[in-house]
Amino acid sequence: MKIEHYIQGSWVTGTGSGTELKNASNGAVVGIADSTGINFKEILNYARGTGGPTLRAMTFHERGRALKALALYLLEKKEHFYRVSSFTGATKIDSWIDIEGGIGNLFTMATKGRRQMPDTPFCVDGDYEPLSKNGTFGGHHIYVPKEGCAIHINAFNFPVWGMLEKIAVNLLAGVPAVVKPATLTSYLTETVVKEIIASKILPEGSLQLICGSASGILDHLTNQDIVTFTGSAETGRMLKSHSNIVDLSVPFNMEADSLNCSILGPDATPDTEEFQIFIKEVAREITVKAGQKCTAIRRTIVPDNLIEAVTKALKERLLKTTIGDPNCEGVRMGPLAGRSQFEEVSAKVKELNQTCEILLGGNQDFEIIGGDRELGAFFPPTLLYCSDPLSNKAVHNIEAFGPVTTLMPYSNTDEAIQLAKLGEGSLVGSIITGDDQFAKDIVYGSAAYHGRFLVLNKDCAKESTGHGSPMPQLVHGGPGRAGGGEEMGGIRGVFHYMQRTAIQGSPTTLTALTGVYQPGSQKIKSVVHPFTQYFEDLEIGHSLSTEDREITVDDIESFCNLSGDHFYAHKPDTDFSDTIFEGQVAHGYFIISAAAGLFVDPPKGPVLANYGLDELRFTKPMYVGTRFRVNLTVKEKTAQEDREDEIPRGIVRWQVEVLDDEDEVAALATILTLVAKRPA
Amino acid sequence: MKIEHYIQGSWVTGTGSGTELKNASNGAVVGIADSTGINFKEILNYARGTGGPTLRAMTFHERGRALKALALYLLEKKEHFYRVSSFTGATKIDSWIDIEGGIGNLFTMATKGRRQMPDTPFCVDGDYEPLSKNGTFGGHHIYVPKEGCAIHINAFNFPVWGMLEKIAVNLLAGVPAVVKPATLTSYLTETVVKEIIASKILPEGSLQLICGSASGILDHLTNQDIVTFTGSAETGRMLKSHSNIVDLSVPFNMEADSLNCSILGPDATPDTEEFQIFIKEVAREITVKAGQKCTAIRRTIVPDNLIEAVTKALKERLLKTTIGDPNCEGVRMGPLAGRSQFEEVSAKVKELNQTCEILLGGNQDFEIIGGDRELGAFFPPTLLYCSDPLSNKAVHNIEAFGPVTTLMPYSNTDEAIQLAKLGEGSLVGSIITGDDQFAKDIVYGSAAYHGRFLVLNKDCAKESTGHGSPMPQLVHGGPGRAGGGEEMGGIRGVFHYMQRTAIQGSPTTLTALTGVYQPGSQKIKSVVHPFTQYFEDLEIGHSLSTEDREITVDDIESFCNLSGDHFYAHKPDTDFSDTIFEGQVAHGYFIISAAAGLFVDPPKGPVLANYGLDELRFTKPMYVGTRFRVNLTVKEKTAQEDREDEIPRGIVRWQVEVLDDEDEVAALATILTLVAKRPA
Repeated sequence: MKIEHYIQGSWVTGTGSGTELKNASNGAVVGIADSTGINFKEILNYARGTGGPTLRAMTFHERGRALKALALYLLEKKEHFYRVSSFTGATKIDSWIDIEGGIGNLFTMATKGRRQMPDTPFCVDGDYEPLSKNGTFGGHHIYVPKEGCAIHINAFNFPVWGMLEKIAVNLLAGVPAVVKPATLTSYLTETVVKEIIASKILPEGSLQLICGSASGILDHLTNQDIVTFTGSAETGRMLKSHSNIVDLSVPFNMEADSLNCSILGPDATPDTEEFQIFIKEVAREITVKAGQKCTAIRRTIVPDNLIEAVTKALKERLLKTTIGDPNCEGVRMGPLAGRSQFEEVSAKVKELNQTCEILLGGNQDFEIIGGDRELGAFFPPTLLYCSDPLSNKAVHNIEAFGPVTTLMPYSNTDEAIQLAKLGEGSLVGSIITGDDQFAKDIVYGSAAYHGRFLVLNKDCAKESTGHGSPMPQLVHGGPGRAGGGEEMGGIRGVFHYMQRTAIQGSPTTLTALTGVYQPGSQKIKSVVHPFTQYFEDLEIGHSLSTEDREITVDDIESFCNLSGDHFYAHKPDTDFSDTIFEGQVAHGYFIISAAAGLFVDPPKGPVLANYGLDELRFTKPMYVGTRFRVNLTVKEKTAQEDREDEIPRGIVRWQVEVLDDEDEVAALATILTLVAKRPA
Repeated sequence: MKIEHYIQGSWVTGTGSGTELKNASNGAVVGIADSTGINFKEILNYARGTGGPTLRAMTFHERGRALKALALYLLEKKEHFYRVSSFTGATKIDSWIDIEGGIGNLFTMATKGRRQMPDTPFCVDGDYEPLSKNGTFGGHHIYVPKEGCAIHINAFNFPVWGMLEKIAVNLLAGVPAVVKPATLTSYLTETVVKEIIASKILPEGSLQLICGSASGILDHLTNQDIVTFTGSAETGRMLKSHSNIVDLSVPFNMEADSLNCSILGPDATPDTEEFQIFIKEVAREITVKAGQKCTAIRRTIVPDNLIEAVTKALKERLLKTTIGDPNCEGVRMGPLAGRSQFEEVSAKVKELNQTCEILLGGNQDFEIIGGDRELGAFFPPTLLYCSDPLSNKAVHNIEAFGPVTTLMPYSNTDEAIQLAKLGEGSLVGSIITGDDQFAKDIVYGSAAYHGRFLVLNKDCAKESTGHGSPMPQLVHGGPGRAGGGEEMGGIRGVFHYMQRTAIQGSPTTLTALTGVYQPGSQKIKSVVHPFTQYFEDLEIGHSLSTEDREITVDDIESFCNLSGDHFYAHKPDTDFSDTIFEGQVAHGYFIISAAAGLFVDPPKGPVLANYGLDELRFTKPMYVGTRFRVNLTVKEKTAQEDREDEIPRGIVRWQVEVLDDEDEVAALATILTLVAKRPA
């Protein structure tokens, strides 16, 4: 019955008596949590010494492929997870968010790692920065994996998603993790980690699990570690003030309390689709996970003339919620995660009730299906009303972490903005309106206080992922009360586990350090045409200088006729006064086409196709009679994954410089080609 | 004699007796610092209420122009600043770093704000993120200015640069600042702020100054404020643990102790240029600012077989340093900033001397020119030697903040990496080598412990900005012991003062929120050709659908001949087995040229020129017989500053979609045109 820890390569149990963890619906014992005798120092050293070096040696693509394999593997085991999840009080839908939402994070980050990142263990950040007149000295930035360990201290409400959304990014960054789920629901996390470890997909040491207390673990931090925390502000503050966090400047990414708002637009009267969308969204946010979401709508902000209509519609909808044991047919909302949570939420509602009216729920009687009213942790959907939200502080400060929201009126846009801000920093706000200008006013009026804003209208409601769902592509976190942290956000989240380091030196040195050709770097004259080289054989800096070509009146006229582009600047009889040109000018697209004509090697060879073009700039007009030539240089190579029925290939980015007869750059571009890998 | 504070629009003095601030060379009183009676709460409220709203209403371009004007203004007053700077013990070169280096930050950020940022008060971060199957729902990110105040608590060593590097970014972000320089040299900061205020260039309330103690100021923080700190780790830790910083999640950007290393490559034997460069660089870092730089080289790491040669060369060079009052002719190194610093550095050298040998300096006698040996704070260049740096902890922990460095040997690359890391987090490391592979090994071996790495060789040494100089374009800060902060780094630094907020909604809503056309957003059918519209009149989403055109064999052949691009895929007689094409394919550049032929409006009009092209991707091969058409849509507009002798203009970015006869996207690009503004 003891929940196990995965530590230093083995599944172990504590040596103490432990704490009973109970089924949220009926109080039956699910397992015993006990971390007595666990050596935290050794766990962290194992992560740093065993998991870290292996992960750091892998490239982003390799890490991404591991995440994808893991996601596919876990998806196959999901029914098992759903079964265990129901013990936490989660309905099927609640579990879907936790389990498949979590696995979705792995999929998304797997794709981002393979598509947006290079096939190297580190990456480059931003652009080359020239730092000298003659171009012999410049700067750049790189991101490298931190050499410590990510310690994730997670909340009880999402035992699966809470782990997976975090390890998806630290693993992609090349950093190992130690996960410490909230004890209350740690048995579900354990269930998932059992499968992760059994899959053998992740390198050993990249994931360890502690179920139960991890008190004292922060005593063993180093300056290379990262700590994340999701939970109550009180605990968060305590951890954040730990002397090691402060002394060693350990990044502490916190996500704590949040009194999120949802604002109904004045245009969204009861006859509009937006009104119905709002009622549905608020009701859903109250009842999903029994309102135990850090992103749930705690403050429902409504135009004063619509309060009555909203109250009526919300009450009607919420009264239809069937509450009970999620394993029973027809149950739409489960219990809270445990009796302790029941006591907590009851107390908070009582506190709110001192200044707010209870419109629905609270201590009123309600029916349950299955479960045990005394041993289970059932709490009904609860709707409060605050008549003076601009002066009432309680409604903006007290977070009842259950199926509870407070309705509050506003009389104009400024008031709505003011109310939104009174949350003092929130994870998310939403605006339900068909009026984009109203949405813009609210967003820019209060974005500084929010980590995310959702605008819902009839065009997007059907496909919307909802107010309460953080997406792996978007940042999750919020300023102030919400903890000041930032998770996810695609690759943004990965960088929290990497060190950004500025590098300076000669362009040639910076090319060697970044693996990307930097402006002014030494070129390697190709003895053969670079188009005859396979992907692997092309070296960064490999370069070709072409013959030159003169621009003739005929060229321009032919190009006019062939392209159909008869823009006045390309015509010989144009009056060029009041234009930016001195006379008949060649088409930019002719220049880049003729440049290709100069550098392309026609026969079949490793270059498979012209794939695209980036950052083309025409820097100087090219007039009739100008002679120009081209420098073509290998700038960057990115291998692609081999696919069946496809010639194995990579993308090669080439720097193209078009030089005129004064040796000045007339056009600059990066072209992309698909280049075949050397056949085995 | 009282140093003044600039508070709530006025210059005021404290009401107490204050502390005498003294000339570092001769102890003469320069001024009295006293902040008695200053109301910190009101100062912060004034910044938030007066400076903030004005700055937030300005666009990045407007803020950038203000920074440029300020830089030009201050440059005119620089002689005055140099005179006052000499009282701090700074030589002409030291002052140049502080004063013109600081002004340089304003110039750089002014340029970045105007060139890299949009002409709006906020900006967009990254790309549109599709979040739905049918494209009706997606996400994006924006950055908005925080609505609080930046509180800068600065160090004594760079009274001008320390202020300007920080306010350059917070002002560009649209956030006001309260600057609290270190009391010791606050009179120089006051001198500069007097000119800043007199210039009337910055909006009132965007800069306030407190000279002297600001103890208690953090008691008045809100969740929208940002605190930066440069100084000792001890003070930093105390401030960082302040309950408001912790409770309100106030970002605390700290730059504290750092035992920076410089590593000589094994290739850099005494006969190489790199050896000479190394000796010069180390000597300079020891003596500039009398070594009072957080970036100075404290650990000089040298191949064991070169220790003797380095010792000899360094001693020779350092012995030539003339020490004295910077106002005296020939003085190359001034005193420390005050007697307290002298005591501090003496104590630290004594501590180091317990395990290290003093090779030069320390308590040995030395000559001074001018100044007063007893009342001044003169300390000689000091070179220590540590024979066992892998086991000696003191040399990696004790920072003697003066002209002091410790020489230490290494025997192979791994050892050099290990030594670099023993700094436990540094602002900067440097490597002097002609071997880029050695540089790469060191950089990637220890980048996770460094905020910046400089690689010096003979190619870049002449134009190098040096080991010790943080550049506005590059991040400054370091992990661990160095404080974990990050300043500057171009626009990266600006974002520390902004809130990143994810936004979600329909593409049309996201277009309204971002001011940039988002994929799938509603288009506005142009009644007239958009090329006939002036910059101001073009609306985001304005769109043109063209006629279609068929690709013929003649087209392809003509394009082959005109461009000179005879790549096999464009030839009719090619054997297409083992290629990725099914038959003769049109040139990508023909497609984009013919697309222009379809959408370009030939007559003279507001469109001045084709300026370039971004993110062109060929997504589908286009074969003979394919008919295609183009959608041209206004994606983004960026006004340019009007210049004399130029037609006033802006850059318009257009989304170009090339659709084939199956209505599939065959090519996608963003083209850039210069478009005239409407004549007045």
